[in-house]
Amino acid sequence: MSNDTPYKIYLPESALPTSWHNLRAKMKALPDPMLHPGTMQPCTKEDLLPVFCEELVDQELNTTDEYIKIPEGIQDFYKMYRPSPLVRAKWLERELDTPAEIYYKFEGNNTSGSHKLNSAAAQVYYAKEQGLTSLTTETGAGQWGTALAMACAYYRVALSVYMVKISSEQKPFRKMVMETYGASVVPSPSDTTEAGRKILAEHPTTGGSLGCAISEALETAMKTDNCRYVLGSVLNHVLLHQSVIGLETKAALEMYGIEPDIIIGCAGGGSNFGGLISPFMAEKIAGKKDYEFIAAEPASCPSFTRGRYAYDFGDTGRTTPLIKMYTLGCGFIPSPNHAGGLRYHGMSPILSKLYCDGYLKARSYIQSDVFDAAALFAKCEGTLPAPESAHAIKCALDEAVKCRETGEKKVILFGLTGTGFFDLSAYDSYNKGLLTDYAPSDADLEKSFAELIALR
Amino acid sequence: MSNDTPYKIYLPESALPTSWHNLRAKMKALPDPMLHPGTMQPCTKEDLLPVFCEELVDQELNTTDEYIKIPEGIQDFYKMYRPSPLVRAKWLERELDTPAEIYYKFEGNNTSGSHKLNSAAAQVYYAKEQGLTSLTTETGAGQWGTALAMACAYYRVALSVYMVKISSEQKPFRKMVMETYGASVVPSPSDTTEAGRKILAEHPTTGGSLGCAISEALETAMKTDNCRYVLGSVLNHVLLHQSVIGLETKAALEMYGIEPDIIIGCAGGGSNFGGLISPFMAEKIAGKKDYEFIAAEPASCPSFTRGRYAYDFGDTGRTTPLIKMYTLGCGFIPSPNHAGGLRYHGMSPILSKLYCDGYLKARSYIQSDVFDAAALFAKCEGTLPAPESAHAIKCALDEAVKCRETGEKKVILFGLTGTGFFDLSAYDSYNKGLLTDYAPSDADLEKSFAELIALR
Repeated sequence: MSNDTPYKIYLPESALPTSWHNLRAKMKALPDPMLHPGTMQPCTKEDLLPVFCEELVDQELNTTDEYIKIPEGIQDFYKMYRPSPLVRAKWLERELDTPAEIYYKFEGNNTSGSHKLNSAAAQVYYAKEQGLTSLTTETGAGQWGTALAMACAYYRVALSVYMVKISSEQKPFRKMVMETYGASVVPSPSDTTEAGRKILAEHPTTGGSLGCAISEALETAMKTDNCRYVLGSVLNHVLLHQSVIGLETKAALEMYGIEPDIIIGCAGGGSNFGGLISPFMAEKIAGKKDYEFIAAEPASCPSFTRGRYAYDFGDTGRTTPLIKMYTLGCGFIPSPNHAGGLRYHGMSPILSKLYCDGYLKARSYIQSDVFDAAALFAKCEGTLPAPESAHAIKCALDEAVKCRETGEKKVILFGLTGTGFFDLSAYDSYNKGLLTDYAPSDADLEKSFAELIALR
Repeated sequence: MSNDTPYKIYLPESALPTSWHNLRAKMKALPDPMLHPGTMQPCTKEDLLPVFCEELVDQELNTTDEYIKIPEGIQDFYKMYRPSPLVRAKWLERELDTPAEIYYKFEGNNTSGSHKLNSAAAQVYYAKEQGLTSLTTETGAGQWGTALAMACAYYRVALSVYMVKISSEQKPFRKMVMETYGASVVPSPSDTTEAGRKILAEHPTTGGSLGCAISEALETAMKTDNCRYVLGSVLNHVLLHQSVIGLETKAALEMYGIEPDIIIGCAGGGSNFGGLISPFMAEKIAGKKDYEFIAAEPASCPSFTRGRYAYDFGDTGRTTPLIKMYTLGCGFIPSPNHAGGLRYHGMSPILSKLYCDGYLKARSYIQSDVFDAAALFAKCEGTLPAPESAHAIKCALDEAVKCRETGEKKVILFGLTGTGFFDLSAYDSYNKGLLTDYAPSDADLEKSFAELIALR
């Protein structure tokens, strides 16, 4: 970093990417395809059209084009809040007394408060172009639902959000934001769907899970005219849209001649981490650079670090296509004591393949360590991070402290995916010493794994 | 605006102002001085030192230096979130089909969510430099308290916040944010002070007011060793710190050759509006430019449009110096039905003098119109505004609609002081049609005015 480098690097608006980066076009071995659960054959475009709008299906299946144009109607939306800043965490570096340089790409400077808006805008735009009148989705912490509500208000498409019940109780204000943008919010599991009623019958006191909310949203989409389902993570087209994060980050770093050694992201379904690393990973695959990639996940929902690489359903109701991914089993529901987000049982198939093939590492963290990192970050850098994002902060802190011990001047880059404005119940518990740490037992996981479909 | 002008103008970090702008040095007639309530003589530096730290007292009384240097320790803090963006509201212009150009200076891109951080950083820095170990303050909507908690965490000074009780109930998450940054939060009126106990005895069910919380914070500061009181609005030194808003705005406009015709800000105590207009008003006073300045205030707390220009106490407990300002009377407590913020009974003495001398206009708005404007803005521009800020939005909308009717291509600039993340109870009421409009009766105001001290 030169002396002229600002602490917050804002790319000029004219440098907003005009294409997304499709990493699959550069992967030496592709992820295994989604399978139709009836035929066990790879899903075709026709299989997916009843669920997703057509352009998204094309993107989901596109493994050949490295760059896919961002329509002007989406670029126009992006300009409301992008390019997002790349920030030098100099206050944190000073606190840690580390020789490392720490940078973070901050995606929280928009009302939805997270990176999810990048894919929400794209998915609603295509739905509108196709003439759809309504969409359904699920949301966990509420970031995806809020982002989608904003995009639906802008493009004028109706929206029903199935919100994980425990989150809707912990985050009532998230619900109010979605409603302010015109969305209808249903706590899940609910009695409005067969999937919901089934889960309620088996687990009447459950706080819900993303997998369960997905089942409900899918069922509603299939039963409603001119309606489709949209998903905020995991899928290939979502990672594609999120590549705008990585493209901007790379352009900002190159503008100032900064070369990262380590690139870190939190990983729930993988959309932010996949988007952040996309153009960097293409360089690593091509042998041009040797970045170290680290996915940071919660110990209570450790898909990478303790999951199996196998075919599994994307939802608890077992209605989706089968996806080859690192998974804890679609029946896995994280402890309600887990306040840190990233509650999904599976992981992006693209990231799963890269992990399996040794291109990236993963680490898991207990939530008390994660909140410690979050509070330190907030006090030093001003921004209150989302607990999800704080997993990446914890990992970056550990790496920076290692540098202090070894004297290495590594350049650490991480994704700060969002703000913690709507996670204050969790922070309140943390402040009061009420957070408890949790990790599933081996026996629990074995039970969950037993139902996986081990095809390859 | 040329075609090359971005929608969001970010000044380079190197253009961060290095001095604040002290408008009093350019005013042809100065505001009347604060008076000591015992002697009725102008307050001296010595009178103010027990309450405020020394550097702030010097700034409060400085009427001669047009520019006052921003210490590097404060510039360093500012760089965490400044320069803030100046945004072209092109999505709103399209929605309104107006020939007007609308710009807003957005101060919400920081965790406190508002412009209040600009003065909080300065005040805590000087307290730390003076060797103080704790501060007290009051907060209404919670923006000031949050900002101060962030600054106190950064500079490591202890903080007690007296929070208007109705706000602490409507905005529990604001309290949690302050606590996350390490502050102690007391709902006001409380039984921890004589002032609080007195008000509780007279009005046991009151939701509190800023004036009352100020009395409590002041009393605690005076009774605690090595402690001072800090205030987030009204006072001259607060407007001085907020001039960073106007200085950046002016630099950004000049960079792209944009000349505003109308400059609008919401006005509670006046800090944001005073800071925004400071360098522009200096030009108007000097006869160089003829900007139209409009202060937007709530109909339920209409200091400018229905208040009297007179000496009054700054607090309900009648413990502060006497301030010559537009005021509704220090006994005035706005209706608890008022959800839109800007609840203070008085107005900055600088702005009051300018208003009295005809340099600026004021308009008042009922809250249902303000929330309509807020919701439209959120859907068009993405950002969910604070209800306070939405008063300025409403005023800007009205002006833009006028331009549509007359065909005039005016350039409208307004201050978007903050985000509505912590005002969701109010938005929830609005969404459910439960907001009611309120304005004090003439009889109520006359009763309140009867106690004013009419010295000049």
